[in-house]
Amino acid sequence: MYNVQQENFKVLENGNIATAKGFHAGGLHCGIRKQKIDFGWFYSDVPAQAAGVYTTNVFQAAPLKVTQESIAKENKLQAVVVNSGIANACTGEQGLTDAYDMRKLFAETVGVEEHLAAVASTGLIGELLPMEKIQTGISQIHTAEHQGAEKFETAILTTDTHEKGIAIELEIDGEKVVIGGAAKGSGMIHPNMATMLGFVTTDANISSEQLSTTLKKITNQSFNMITVDGDTSTNDMVLVLANGKAGNQPLTNAHSDWETFYSGLKFVCEYLAKEIARDGEGASKLVEVNVDGSFSDESAQAIAKSIISSNLVKTALHGADANWGRIITAIGYSGQSLNPDKVSIYLGDILVVENGIPHRFDEEEAKNYLLKDEVKILAKLGDGNGKATAWGCDLSYEYVRINASYRT
Amino acid sequence: MYNVQQENFKVLENGNIATAKGFHAGGLHCGIRKQKIDFGWFYSDVPAQAAGVYTTNVFQAAPLKVTQESIAKENKLQAVVVNSGIANACTGEQGLTDAYDMRKLFAETVGVEEHLAAVASTGLIGELLPMEKIQTGISQIHTAEHQGAEKFETAILTTDTHEKGIAIELEIDGEKVVIGGAAKGSGMIHPNMATMLGFVTTDANISSEQLSTTLKKITNQSFNMITVDGDTSTNDMVLVLANGKAGNQPLTNAHSDWETFYSGLKFVCEYLAKEIARDGEGASKLVEVNVDGSFSDESAQAIAKSIISSNLVKTALHGADANWGRIITAIGYSGQSLNPDKVSIYLGDILVVENGIPHRFDEEEAKNYLLKDEVKILAKLGDGNGKATAWGCDLSYEYVRINASYRT
Repeated sequence: MYNVQQENFKVLENGNIATAKGFHAGGLHCGIRKQKIDFGWFYSDVPAQAAGVYTTNVFQAAPLKVTQESIAKENKLQAVVVNSGIANACTGEQGLTDAYDMRKLFAETVGVEEHLAAVASTGLIGELLPMEKIQTGISQIHTAEHQGAEKFETAILTTDTHEKGIAIELEIDGEKVVIGGAAKGSGMIHPNMATMLGFVTTDANISSEQLSTTLKKITNQSFNMITVDGDTSTNDMVLVLANGKAGNQPLTNAHSDWETFYSGLKFVCEYLAKEIARDGEGASKLVEVNVDGSFSDESAQAIAKSIISSNLVKTALHGADANWGRIITAIGYSGQSLNPDKVSIYLGDILVVENGIPHRFDEEEAKNYLLKDEVKILAKLGDGNGKATAWGCDLSYEYVRINASYRT
Repeated sequence: MYNVQQENFKVLENGNIATAKGFHAGGLHCGIRKQKIDFGWFYSDVPAQAAGVYTTNVFQAAPLKVTQESIAKENKLQAVVVNSGIANACTGEQGLTDAYDMRKLFAETVGVEEHLAAVASTGLIGELLPMEKIQTGISQIHTAEHQGAEKFETAILTTDTHEKGIAIELEIDGEKVVIGGAAKGSGMIHPNMATMLGFVTTDANISSEQLSTTLKKITNQSFNMITVDGDTSTNDMVLVLANGKAGNQPLTNAHSDWETFYSGLKFVCEYLAKEIARDGEGASKLVEVNVDGSFSDESAQAIAKSIISSNLVKTALHGADANWGRIITAIGYSGQSLNPDKVSIYLGDILVVENGIPHRFDEEEAKNYLLKDEVKILAKLGDGNGKATAWGCDLSYEYVRINASYRT
């Protein structure tokens, strides 16, 4: 957890997806995976305004279709169920039927209307959900021993090495508002997919329209700016639910505390995104790439992603090698317009390239910097005011080991 | 070397870049690298029609600028000099001056006009060429012991594990015509760059205009369809020289033997491109991806490249894991329009996905197939007539080891 005390909000100790008023969560082992908790849920006491963003992969998994249908009805959700182990992707008609059945049974058991329930899956592609196990799981969601947000956080993980949860508290109209969340990372489940799932809950009062616009904008600066291996899964999804229990005046752009809420929601999404990047398969460090001075923000995003996605940059960082030539190269093939003679590059505070020409630096100092757990690369372009930040990780032997292993 | 006996041409035993009439080549150790031969050249007895394709990287190295200037003058070249060890990229004004000086001295020593000489470099970015060593190298290009195409083939290598050369013979207007070539691969030199260099020589009589159009078309189907790690270097370059010594009638689209020449040139470029992919850093196998039935050839190219560039596909192939879910995923995020329900996937002859749904297959058989040195993936899309082929390699521990090592 970050040790952050921002002016506008505070990070709550042990805060999680069920910290906001009226939210509950839990998880259990239903038997899709051998031992790990593999089945989780969260729900609100009352229907919540909801918004979602989904994978752009053409092969969109069945649960995403069902969840989008749920939200489409009245832009509300009240309960979300997630399984790990099997992605229910490339499963045809039967997969779709299973996702509908999962939603129906879950909604009935929680006691909400069907279209207020969402479903998500992550895991192996091309296998059908074991519906009996799913049913067994759903039948136990009210059992006392399975309650708890930490169980939910564990249930959604695949090859992630740790749970990812957070909650922050801020003040709106003098009312305490909480924004919490949980996520699973880009680790590929043995053996198939890099799925990113993000779930955010808040007791703020906000319209679904405002929520949807804001989520899209923030996702583009957070979840969409991380990369572990550049692969976009069939099951990626980010959902946000706002149940209004904090009792603030409806949040809009015009609300005097809008900036507070916006920066709080952005912080939560960015925190979860960074935790995903840090926990990339085999990763030994979190890498942050800042691009400043490009012709536009979009251009800066493309350049930042080009750098953070380069296998050559990633292996160099794994070896703590101040190999700026690879960074220059990744900038150069990003497809973006820029003046090569104006590009300067910093590793942390260490200037290594100035106006397109190498700048003498202390190799030992640079190596020591790159051995840190968190490493920052800054590319200054000098062409305009565009800027962006992307996060990723190094590329290690361990990544190859995890992903080269036989499924059998 | 392939054991190929095509109808239209034959692959010459020990054929190389100096097999075509009037071409000569050599190489020597000038001292840029510790031990390996690092300085090579080839030239023609007479000026040759010439064409080139160059990296799209914004940070284009100095030698590429000088070479383009040479060709621009009258679309001819007679002599080419190459050094490995230092790329002369990101070297500013001094780098450009050095490249001009290298061209000038080389041209004088070979005895050709300056604009008939081309220069190429591959190696470390951001360091200046040691011009004294370059001068020493140039001064010895007529020494008997340094002659030989195999020396040239060695001189241009960096982390490549073997030389890449070929020549074929075909008949045009009843005259014997030879097309030969040499290349260096996408191996990153310790520590910096993935540079691809390709040089093709022929004694065919063909206009530079026709040559240029043809080279561009063929490059898009050969050198541009390989990937080792997706990084496009500052120094990539492919040159073709045609000196006309075979005495055939000028080749154009309308020439009755045009198809013979075209398919021969394509074979040589494809051969060199595949050898580069096969020799990718840490690679244990050559992977060929065929896409068939997409809406257009361009779309098929993008899909094939998406598959061959996926780290997840590449690690799975390294582990001989028939992980078709990763192939589906890479197709899905290629950004191309397609019908997911029509996609079928083969590993060799083994059908693993049929119309978007998994097809039962023998895991053991698939694993045995994927353990081979050469592996083929076929994606049938069923949407149109577009097709493309791409080549690459698996992603191994060895790749990480090579690229994570310190430069110091």
